[in-house]
Amino acid sequence: MTQSALAAYLHSHMPLSRAMAVSVVSANAMEVVLEAPLAPNLNMHGTMFGGSIANLALLAAWSVMHLRLEADQFAGQLVVGRSETDYLRPVSGPARALARLDGLDWDGFSRQLNRHGKARLTVTVEVLSDDQIAARLVGTFAAIAGSEAQI
Amino acid sequence: MTQSALAAYLHSHMPLSRAMAVSVVSANAMEVVLEAPLAPNLNMHGTMFGGSIANLALLAAWSVMHLRLEADQFAGQLVVGRSETDYLRPVSGPARALARLDGLDWDGFSRQLNRHGKARLTVTVEVLSDDQIAARLVGTFAAIAGSEAQI
Repeated sequence: MTQSALAAYLHSHMPLSRAMAVSVVSANAMEVVLEAPLAPNLNMHGTMFGGSIANLALLAAWSVMHLRLEADQFAGQLVVGRSETDYLRPVSGPARALARLDGLDWDGFSRQLNRHGKARLTVTVEVLSDDQIAARLVGTFAAIAGSEAQI
Repeated sequence: MTQSALAAYLHSHMPLSRAMAVSVVSANAMEVVLEAPLAPNLNMHGTMFGGSIANLALLAAWSVMHLRLEADQFAGQLVVGRSETDYLRPVSGPARALARLDGLDWDGFSRQLNRHGKARLTVTVEVLSDDQIAARLVGTFAAIAGSEAQI
């Protein structure tokens, strides 16, 4: 799935990503960078709603795992099981979420998935604004082979 | 702030709450219940996007603290510092988030706020769907007297 295909996929399958005006800055099977502008994501203090910041990070983490699983020809679902977000500073402009798979034990995750039809992986995402880290999300996702509807 | 005033406040100050079609089921200074329908919050599996579930819970927690602080005539900001969300089961219809202050040490929080101009409180929110707990969010908020823009 290319960069523009990922943007179209998110916007058509997840209406909230369209409401947040999420764009795909770059996307491949190792790293995904998503961006969201301030206006549709404002809070009552004139900065970015913490929920929007967390969503952007969650979508980036989901996307990079999705692209890598797609490259591995995995058929099934990828669902979030847990997320922890630290909000470190206010965001007063656009925000970028960077999700990377390097440094993670993808091979172990992949072996587990092939053996048991289910495996979990924890991905850390940084959200940057104005060249500073504004938030950090740690998300644990489960890949489930050929499964039914999940979150 | 009444139930309808809270809905109007959220929708006018936080565009994403409008995009999520969040409604206020009940609201007072001890408990807030918010609801969101499935359609604007769908994910690619036809269930509710985890980010929407977490947002709904975050908004409920923020709202009940905001209403209580308003009742206490607090002037300042209420910002989220950290959130942890466990996604326990898929949501295939509307979801309700229940945030309550009973059982929390509001008096201690309030004393700290009066003394130091800043205090933190952790609120647990349950998200229900189809009468079952679908997710649980633990959010830590900071109240800051007369402060500048924050998350």
